[in-house]
Amino acid sequence: MTSTDSPKYTLLYHPGIPGRAEFIRLAFEATGTPYTDLANSASDGYATVRNTCIDPAALSSLGDNPPVFAPPALQVSSEGKGGGDLLISQTSNILNYLGPRLGLVGEDEADKLWVGQVVATALDLNNEVHDTHHPIAVADYYENQKDEALKKTTDFRKNRLPKFLGYFERMLKWNEKQQERQANRGMYLVGSKLTTADLVVWQVLDGLFFAFPSEMKARTEDFGLLLGDFYKSVKTEKGITGYLESERRMKYSMGIFRHYPELDRQS
Amino acid sequence: MTSTDSPKYTLLYHPGIPGRAEFIRLAFEATGTPYTDLANSASDGYATVRNTCIDPAALSSLGDNPPVFAPPALQVSSEGKGGGDLLISQTSNILNYLGPRLGLVGEDEADKLWVGQVVATALDLNNEVHDTHHPIAVADYYENQKDEALKKTTDFRKNRLPKFLGYFERMLKWNEKQQERQANRGMYLVGSKLTTADLVVWQVLDGLFFAFPSEMKARTEDFGLLLGDFYKSVKTEKGITGYLESERRMKYSMGIFRHYPELDRQS
Repeated sequence: MTSTDSPKYTLLYHPGIPGRAEFIRLAFEATGTPYTDLANSASDGYATVRNTCIDPAALSSLGDNPPVFAPPALQVSSEGKGGGDLLISQTSNILNYLGPRLGLVGEDEADKLWVGQVVATALDLNNEVHDTHHPIAVADYYENQKDEALKKTTDFRKNRLPKFLGYFERMLKWNEKQQERQANRGMYLVGSKLTTADLVVWQVLDGLFFAFPSEMKARTEDFGLLLGDFYKSVKTEKGITGYLESERRMKYSMGIFRHYPELDRQS
Repeated sequence: MTSTDSPKYTLLYHPGIPGRAEFIRLAFEATGTPYTDLANSASDGYATVRNTCIDPAALSSLGDNPPVFAPPALQVSSEGKGGGDLLISQTSNILNYLGPRLGLVGEDEADKLWVGQVVATALDLNNEVHDTHHPIAVADYYENQKDEALKKTTDFRKNRLPKFLGYFERMLKWNEKQQERQANRGMYLVGSKLTTADLVVWQVLDGLFFAFPSEMKARTEDFGLLLGDFYKSVKTEKGITGYLESERRMKYSMGIFRHYPELDRQS
């Protein structure tokens, strides 16, 4: 959706990896909203990202906006104080901002709040996945914390993963009952149309299938609605199918979701 | 603020520890908002919390509300679909709901978003503090992961803690410049009055002073505005002073913030 006629939204993140920015990209792509993915589209884009979001001494960012702890950040043209650009950060905060504006929060206030709690839970899971390969020090190499990573991941696969998957599966069953729409079995987590909850949970599942293919395969039967119907269904949403086939969709590599065979379930 | 005439808000959490519910308690206490702290006020309160928030097989909670991943949860009288009670969960989500209703989000939309990003960042720090004593398995004993905890905490104290403290210190400096209110030096993180950002950051700092007293003392000089002016100032806010002296304010023990001398800075 990146275009040359200055979209209203600019996404600031590291180049070349899906990472935490992917949750935000999916919201834009699912709704056909134009945006600039700065570090992936301009030759000096990442320099701007670094100056705006990564300078550990910055006392402000992008004019009078407050400093950013870490990317992703979202720049919104002309929506800041005094008519300048607004800059906001933290994935959940950005999604809370975009959700109502892009029509991704359900039908009423209760839906919006439930979407918010599912998003927060899925982002917690995302963090726990990252910690499986970096249980000791985020800035150190995996190779320097391999023993601890194996212990952490063993607990994650055995205890944490089924707890999260079970919760999302129950959300789908709960929503199915609320909607009484058997024809749309397992399509949405909250309400009767796509929300950021669906996008965020889907992205984490997709990353888990990449990182732990054996583990996820072994779990498919227990969480059939989530890992079957729901996971497939989101990929057929307008905007998402084309995005996943485009070059804008980046491959997993050395980011949050990493495939280390030794950490996966051993058959 | 717990009273017998059925307050609108009921907080559902584990009894006897401040935990993640403390961020929500502080929002109620700072604004003089009546609430019921269910597990700490009714003899069968925790049974209700368990049924509502902790049953791993529940397909709904409190009538037609969706299942809850984990406490804390907030019950709001008559604000649910069809006029029933609303039940929402996830700390950041609950604070996003309460913020505007209790007047704790600043003056405009930009303030509200910046409050949201500071809250999210402070809750990330809170999670990292928890992981210092439980780096491998959240459901296992500290004693079974002591070696890894020492490694994790050493990295946390050396790298992560100053990164977070530095960010909050810079937020205070940024806001001071925006407000140009030298008389109120270091009082608020966003805008010119108390917000949930101040309360959440303050609570995490307070827990850090308990868990790592030597480390925090050694950091005081580098982050003077945050650990000096700001930390003291929040304690003087209307509602907070009395709360901190009351029996409702629970002691840290074996929750998120734990004082293991072997994990603190060794003098």
